[in-house]
Amino acid sequence: MTRREKRGTGRRVQPREQASPVASPVWPGMTGGRYLPLDPSELERIHELALRLLADLGFSQITPSLESRAVAAGCYLDDDGRLHFPRALVEDVIARTRRKFSLHGIDPARDIEIGSRRVHMGTGGAAPFVMDFNSGRYRESTVADLFDITRLVDRLEHVHFCHRSVIARDTESVLDLDINTIYACLQGTTKPVAVSYTDSDSVRAAIPLLDRIAGGDGKFRERPFCTVVCCHVVPPMRFAEESCDAMEAAVEAGMPMLMISAGQAGATAPAALAGAVAQACAETLAGLVLCNIIDPECRAIFAAWPFVSDLRTGAMSGGSGEQSLLAAASAQMAGFYDLPSSMPAGMTDSKLPDAQAGWEKGYSVTLAAHAGASMIHESAGMLGSLMGASLESYVLDNEMLGAILRTVGGIEVSEDTLNYEVIRDVVLGEGHYLGHAQTLARMKTEYLYPEIADRRSLNEWEQGGGDLRDAARDRVRKILSEHYPSHIAADVDAWIRKNYNIVLPAERMRPGNGVW
Amino acid sequence: MTRREKRGTGRRVQPREQASPVASPVWPGMTGGRYLPLDPSELERIHELALRLLADLGFSQITPSLESRAVAAGCYLDDDGRLHFPRALVEDVIARTRRKFSLHGIDPARDIEIGSRRVHMGTGGAAPFVMDFNSGRYRESTVADLFDITRLVDRLEHVHFCHRSVIARDTESVLDLDINTIYACLQGTTKPVAVSYTDSDSVRAAIPLLDRIAGGDGKFRERPFCTVVCCHVVPPMRFAEESCDAMEAAVEAGMPMLMISAGQAGATAPAALAGAVAQACAETLAGLVLCNIIDPECRAIFAAWPFVSDLRTGAMSGGSGEQSLLAAASAQMAGFYDLPSSMPAGMTDSKLPDAQAGWEKGYSVTLAAHAGASMIHESAGMLGSLMGASLESYVLDNEMLGAILRTVGGIEVSEDTLNYEVIRDVVLGEGHYLGHAQTLARMKTEYLYPEIADRRSLNEWEQGGGDLRDAARDRVRKILSEHYPSHIAADVDAWIRKNYNIVLPAERMRPGNGVW
Repeated sequence: MTRREKRGTGRRVQPREQASPVASPVWPGMTGGRYLPLDPSELERIHELALRLLADLGFSQITPSLESRAVAAGCYLDDDGRLHFPRALVEDVIARTRRKFSLHGIDPARDIEIGSRRVHMGTGGAAPFVMDFNSGRYRESTVADLFDITRLVDRLEHVHFCHRSVIARDTESVLDLDINTIYACLQGTTKPVAVSYTDSDSVRAAIPLLDRIAGGDGKFRERPFCTVVCCHVVPPMRFAEESCDAMEAAVEAGMPMLMISAGQAGATAPAALAGAVAQACAETLAGLVLCNIIDPECRAIFAAWPFVSDLRTGAMSGGSGEQSLLAAASAQMAGFYDLPSSMPAGMTDSKLPDAQAGWEKGYSVTLAAHAGASMIHESAGMLGSLMGASLESYVLDNEMLGAILRTVGGIEVSEDTLNYEVIRDVVLGEGHYLGHAQTLARMKTEYLYPEIADRRSLNEWEQGGGDLRDAARDRVRKILSEHYPSHIAADVDAWIRKNYNIVLPAERMRPGNGVW
Repeated sequence: MTRREKRGTGRRVQPREQASPVASPVWPGMTGGRYLPLDPSELERIHELALRLLADLGFSQITPSLESRAVAAGCYLDDDGRLHFPRALVEDVIARTRRKFSLHGIDPARDIEIGSRRVHMGTGGAAPFVMDFNSGRYRESTVADLFDITRLVDRLEHVHFCHRSVIARDTESVLDLDINTIYACLQGTTKPVAVSYTDSDSVRAAIPLLDRIAGGDGKFRERPFCTVVCCHVVPPMRFAEESCDAMEAAVEAGMPMLMISAGQAGATAPAALAGAVAQACAETLAGLVLCNIIDPECRAIFAAWPFVSDLRTGAMSGGSGEQSLLAAASAQMAGFYDLPSSMPAGMTDSKLPDAQAGWEKGYSVTLAAHAGASMIHESAGMLGSLMGASLESYVLDNEMLGAILRTVGGIEVSEDTLNYEVIRDVVLGEGHYLGHAQTLARMKTEYLYPEIADRRSLNEWEQGGGDLRDAARDRVRKILSEHYPSHIAADVDAWIRKNYNIVLPAERMRPGNGVW
């Protein structure tokens, strides 16, 4: 299906027509797209400006290698060294790039298929701090934190992918940072993961590790279970040279690419929200075109992520209503292009998992999901506008994500759900539906029950006490003290530890390590 | 515009085409309707079942007076005493009832116009408890609580109407309850208010009071500033006799009517969500038809409010994802009928203003607003699935409502917001948008800045400390110690106190009363 045929319809495939793996009202890949912040003509106008920016304004700082490839493919370099992307080339890439593909987990049962507005929740971010679980104070994040976050997320049912969310600051070189990030993520979960690479050396260094985990030389490429978080641009309209080098190497290695443009409206993108979306689309499309020039079979994800500045201070505001609009509009642009997409949501400005964190995460994830983002990054765990992560927040947010996914599932309209006889029998009979066969049948298929969110009566609550954060902390403790994944064989781990500088002590990765 | 012409389009008038009273990105009556949980054919099917329930199943327990009127208008009573509403009559009332009207405040500047998917946030509920401001413990709610809540809401900018949210339990008769509720609400705010009436005696007793405040006999009817919260049915499909008597008297007195059907899915409504929506539509439409039979010029609001039971316990779950879907689908049904509507949202199951309260309020209000509900009741202040209210929650929720309203406002797509030259000038010039004229111009019109929600940097937060609940409590204290509205003249108040049993001491209504 081409974009021209698809555009502007914005309708989902009804989720009830998809197969649910179990009798549950929620599952990975429910179809969003019932919230449409932009009209069809508005989508066209934003796209038109994006094309104009690509063709007429172009990008500075292209790398020599990508310049050669791009010029060979039809781009041109102007006298100021800016690379321009002709409209026909961009349109052509949009038309022929992959519209749907799997992001693999080490466990194939956890693969997710992205595209066609199928919504998946996941982690993301590059927080430099974590809220220490014991002290409650923020401190620099470490490899061990990343490992703990990842194996925690491995057990959270409504988080479908686990992209790196904190920076391992206890590493000493960029290579060590990148390798130890991969190691912590892949040891922690069999869900699809993603990391970023500082430069092309990191990519080349990682390939043997990834192949070894995959089962041998060239095996990773067959089922690439580790995506690249690639910020290929420094907005506005400038390429990031090291990231572009890394991108080139990664695409050649068959890695899926999350192509991110992360401008801040009012600072590195226009303050006018529509302009910020257009610039982000142009920047993201530039990355997609380059990926496709390197490899027409590449797996590239449209991640136009315009962020918001509080214009009084210049500081990022991840929790603002404007941020939710930007993400939802960008998701709709991805739907317009019919491309697999990622949007950031769940980024609260609060430093604590409090009411503000709840409502900012609540409305932002809801709007991104209903706008049909394929992947919602940052949907769990993050605080302080992505500056920090908190273990208990992952657990709390998982509860929220379940409920939001339930809303994405929508309302089943069918002969059974609109059964006149059911209502008549109850009204003329017992007068209530409590014991009716339909009620019993629908209990599990229409209703999702939370794990820790409080539904007690006021009286039970007053008697029983207990705080939601305490319940979340208990779940963190239980998972982290029990769940030490062992999907990477001992000999593979030994080989990795022999060939790379692995910071995480082996004993930290086993039960009874005295930490949990 | 008739329903036939209107149905299924679901498109809003762009809010930017509406007049904003001030240079703000949010205002009362922004147009929702960009989230459409149901397809056009699904709307038709639900409507079809609603019509069938009205015509073929009918309602028990009609009052003698309404029976006469209804039969004269074309309804019929079967041998079991059930009142049936022929399809043509129902369709006719939907076609000719008022599609848009004002709900007045005592201050005309605070009137709201409901209909056409224009979204307003407000309070509501009938909580029997409040969280005591000082002890933090729940206790029975009083007239003074209602007065304090009302004058607090009077100052919260994103709460557009103030319907009674707690029960004045320190009254001794139903008449005293109803009269003191009106008194506390009208003394506390000049925004549009609403109360419920236990029976027709209460309605008749209230009319002189309302007229006196309005300025003389018959004056209230000219600008009715107090709406009736009317639960005319006891689901499934049974009329509430006392409420129906009150409804008859209220419609005759020219009072606007909030016609509520509040079944609980799985208990008093089908567990299948679609069926619950259909039953609620039938029950609400029955009320609208009766109102229109009494007075074709009546102002009736479509409030199909299906609630959710946790089917494991039978307890209400106001915070569930299913509840959000029910409200959004009902809002879309109201849009399908092109009727002014009210939906309940913001009903968390949590007993505290914590993260759960935040996310449940966040997603539910967001979906109801984007589905285009004219009025969102319970959007501020409520906890514990409507069992309790909390002063600080009103302030916190007001922050959330601002941000959600900002998302309803959407993204302006125009020559200015998609200005190529702005981007070109920045990219080829300074490299950032911080000081650009567009940024300065858009600061106030595209961005909303919160009052108390935390946007500090991690460092500032660590240095400055302070908790969001504390900030909310400070705002409560400031408003309640300073804001004693005086829009009702002393002689009117004296007349009311002479003619009714007013529980609230006069000194409690003046500054320096020792409470705040």
